[in-house]
Amino acid sequence: MTERITVVKIGGNVIDDAAALKRFLGEFAALPGAKILVHGGGKLATRLAERLELEVRMVEGRRITDKGMLDVVTMVYAGLVNKQIVAGLQAAGCNAIGLSGADGNIVTARRRAPEPVDFGFVGDIERVDHKLLGRLLDAGLVPVFPAIMHDGRGTLLNCNADSVASAVALGAARLAPTDLIYCFEKRGVLRDAEDEGSVIREITAATYPPLKADGTVSKGMIPKIENALRAVEKGVRSVTIRSAERLADDSGTTIR
Amino acid sequence: MTERITVVKIGGNVIDDAAALKRFLGEFAALPGAKILVHGGGKLATRLAERLELEVRMVEGRRITDKGMLDVVTMVYAGLVNKQIVAGLQAAGCNAIGLSGADGNIVTARRRAPEPVDFGFVGDIERVDHKLLGRLLDAGLVPVFPAIMHDGRGTLLNCNADSVASAVALGAARLAPTDLIYCFEKRGVLRDAEDEGSVIREITAATYPPLKADGTVSKGMIPKIENALRAVEKGVRSVTIRSAERLADDSGTTIR
Repeated sequence: MTERITVVKIGGNVIDDAAALKRFLGEFAALPGAKILVHGGGKLATRLAERLELEVRMVEGRRITDKGMLDVVTMVYAGLVNKQIVAGLQAAGCNAIGLSGADGNIVTARRRAPEPVDFGFVGDIERVDHKLLGRLLDAGLVPVFPAIMHDGRGTLLNCNADSVASAVALGAARLAPTDLIYCFEKRGVLRDAEDEGSVIREITAATYPPLKADGTVSKGMIPKIENALRAVEKGVRSVTIRSAERLADDSGTTIR
Repeated sequence: MTERITVVKIGGNVIDDAAALKRFLGEFAALPGAKILVHGGGKLATRLAERLELEVRMVEGRRITDKGMLDVVTMVYAGLVNKQIVAGLQAAGCNAIGLSGADGNIVTARRRAPEPVDFGFVGDIERVDHKLLGRLLDAGLVPVFPAIMHDGRGTLLNCNADSVASAVALGAARLAPTDLIYCFEKRGVLRDAEDEGSVIREITAATYPPLKADGTVSKGMIPKIENALRAVEKGVRSVTIRSAERLADDSGTTIR
């Protein structure tokens, strides 16, 4: 069994930029030790839905995943984006294997309750098969997950990629000490939003409340940090928020 | 290691019919022993290309896979169709795992030479990693392959699903006695094309030439039978052409 596992999550800002993605995949391939990649989908799914003239329904600022949209995200995330990433990693000498949750039944999700808002085919992670994960890692494979999972009863579900990353990291943590890296468009949590040099190096359960109270951590960063604190509390060794351009650096904001 | 391996190939006639596919997946899940599924894509890729208004270019009756079309077949075959099949098999209690050739570098292909006709991103199978195949089968997994492979240098390639099935069966034959079943819209090779009851039960290298000479085996059936004869010659125990509706039967035409 491996000594440590690194789980990295990338989002649309890397996936939508071919040059940035290529550079990222090269750096990811060079990371030492056992590793796992989780990816979002970027703008491609939205663009494809528009070209197919699917009606995009939003409730409370969030997109509803109806059957047509589920097919689109399955095609784009689990198909095109996942296989391009896997082929790119293989070219970089990294033995990647793409896995939706249905593949090997490795991650199951539960469809979100239709009340008060029915988001359609959207799921929350239920279970990660850490034993299968361990067997793949032991075989020298590098799992690459899109955020498409299944309910075990034949239905695919669109999940949140950040949540997939943290669930997979928690599963990995049962195998070996696990560090989770969220790649981000900024260098980390900034003390001054205008100054990329003002990265807060470390946040803990003790130092977080004042950062939230004074607005340093605000908006979309709040669920990210709170998810990270929960992941650390449950057994992930560290969660780091870091620029995708600096994957191999010891940079960013680390939650311990 | 397993005592025998069954490789089954399905095409568009099953994939395009939701009820037929569901019934097929139930029967496939119930097949005893180690098994592998290879699938084509059906009409969905063509329909998606039409909706995206991609120009469909045909040369000598064959579609050119340009970059836009490669993205479409990757989305549809390796994404939507593959993940729906895998989720359907999981629901039927079969521990399926979807694998393009890039996943685990399990199948590599070589891009077809651009002379005399440049078919674009079309590949011919080069190598099947039978050791990885064996490791997956030993773990109780059921590999499900779309016909999307890679060249190992970052490029995905659209391959012929019949050829993928026979290459995978040849790889499997290095692990255990392997039987390959091509699911077909008819019950097998018919002595009388109008009579579904006139299935020729067995064809061998000795009995084939007269069947070809008298036109019993003609048109699209010729490459199928000749591929099957080659697969048997190279080590596959048997190749059967059988109706998708009778998967579990001892029916169809068997090439030995």
